[in-house]
Amino acid sequence: MEKLSIIKIGGNIIEDENALNNFLHLFSKIKGKKLLVHGGGKKASQMSTKLGITSKMTNGRRITDAETLEVITMVYGGLVNKNIVAKLQSLNTNCIGLSGADGNCILSSKRPVKEVDYGFVGDVKNVNNQAIEVLINHDFTPVFCAITHDGNGQLLNTNADTITSQIAIGMSKNYETSIYYCFELNGVLEDINDKNSVIKHINAASYKNLLNEGIIADGMLPKLENCFDALKNGVHAVFMGNTTILTKENENFTKITL
Amino acid sequence: MEKLSIIKIGGNIIEDENALNNFLHLFSKIKGKKLLVHGGGKKASQMSTKLGITSKMTNGRRITDAETLEVITMVYGGLVNKNIVAKLQSLNTNCIGLSGADGNCILSSKRPVKEVDYGFVGDVKNVNNQAIEVLINHDFTPVFCAITHDGNGQLLNTNADTITSQIAIGMSKNYETSIYYCFELNGVLEDINDKNSVIKHINAASYKNLLNEGIIADGMLPKLENCFDALKNGVHAVFMGNTTILTKENENFTKITL
Repeated sequence: MEKLSIIKIGGNIIEDENALNNFLHLFSKIKGKKLLVHGGGKKASQMSTKLGITSKMTNGRRITDAETLEVITMVYGGLVNKNIVAKLQSLNTNCIGLSGADGNCILSSKRPVKEVDYGFVGDVKNVNNQAIEVLINHDFTPVFCAITHDGNGQLLNTNADTITSQIAIGMSKNYETSIYYCFELNGVLEDINDKNSVIKHINAASYKNLLNEGIIADGMLPKLENCFDALKNGVHAVFMGNTTILTKENENFTKITL
Repeated sequence: MEKLSIIKIGGNIIEDENALNNFLHLFSKIKGKKLLVHGGGKKASQMSTKLGITSKMTNGRRITDAETLEVITMVYGGLVNKNIVAKLQSLNTNCIGLSGADGNCILSSKRPVKEVDYGFVGDVKNVNNQAIEVLINHDFTPVFCAITHDGNGQLLNTNADTITSQIAIGMSKNYETSIYYCFELNGVLEDINDKNSVIKHINAASYKNLLNEGIIADGMLPKLENCFDALKNGVHAVFMGNTTILTKENENFTKITL
């Protein structure tokens, strides 16, 4: 099977123009088929503040009300996505910026209201891998923002890590798919206070131990659950670290396999 | 040759939710290959006002400074485009929202500074009809916002009428392409004060007479110049009128041919 690299970048890269330019340069050098998923980080909250919209939080979770969804659509779907696309074009990477509504690529359903009403937040229901394959097979590099749709005309704010793993699962049917999560750490850390204590390899067995020892907790827990979900559903490997994991020079990152 | 319908809608439709929904319903019913180009109208100026950005004007022309370009990218490329895409998906039209940077579809160059510095405004240099054909041939309906790029990473604000005619010219190589300009009038009017005085057919010869008689002037002049430019470069026909020109019921519109 042909290889496909799916790269996800988070807010720390999006928010820093130099970091973003450096990343896009590395991304443009990746050989073979590739796909980018980006979050939006603080840019949407900053825009909300400018517009006098106050972020609604419940139990520490941000609520996506109608006004916030508008801002997210503007910032992630417009400002961030189109500027990434224009920059990648200048680096000879022929990309197409997409939300999950475009090409009906990612269908989601509004998260049901239980203890918390998250508002216009979508949980991924279906990835249209045929549509994404048409684009990739014609040498378009898809650049996804973290917005999906419900098929009834409603856009929905969706977690970018989940979008990444769900696309990767969908694409694994016809590609040997690897995920590269680029984030603010060098990898999964043995000691959260030591940025060089990168765990170089995690598999299903060692993951259980890391959980039992309490080494994987807090924000890292859903990220790794997401990774193992992807691996169990056909994804070849997951890599986590800073953006230099896209180069051959970096040997300090976490590789996750079953 | 297969037929292709290219429809352009302006601010009067974008700004009115009911009008937009009605239009999208009509658009979704168009048989055969189709493509949509939308402006953004006052939505961008409204957002600029909310953000405390004052519109810069010189000689009655709006200047696109860096801040305004950001707003245009958010509003046209994000908010308007992605909501149109989601609504069309709900009407079973499998569309992909695009700027000219996506798929390198429309390359432009920043308008040179002469008497006026228009700022980040682009004049179309090249339409990548091969990229658009790949999408159309795979049953994706392209939905373009009026933003292009210069190939060096810079997005540029571009006139939506010009984008429409330039795409139509590009697509005429392999399709029998017709343009439908949907706007606030029922067509080109003989008497600007009588909305029913629609001139039903204009050709190159009658156009000269209309110009000499001063019937075509002001805002209609660049629109019609644009139409004849398209026709001279291979476009099959141009239709102008309200959105019901997309139905068989309306017989009150202007058809323009060479």
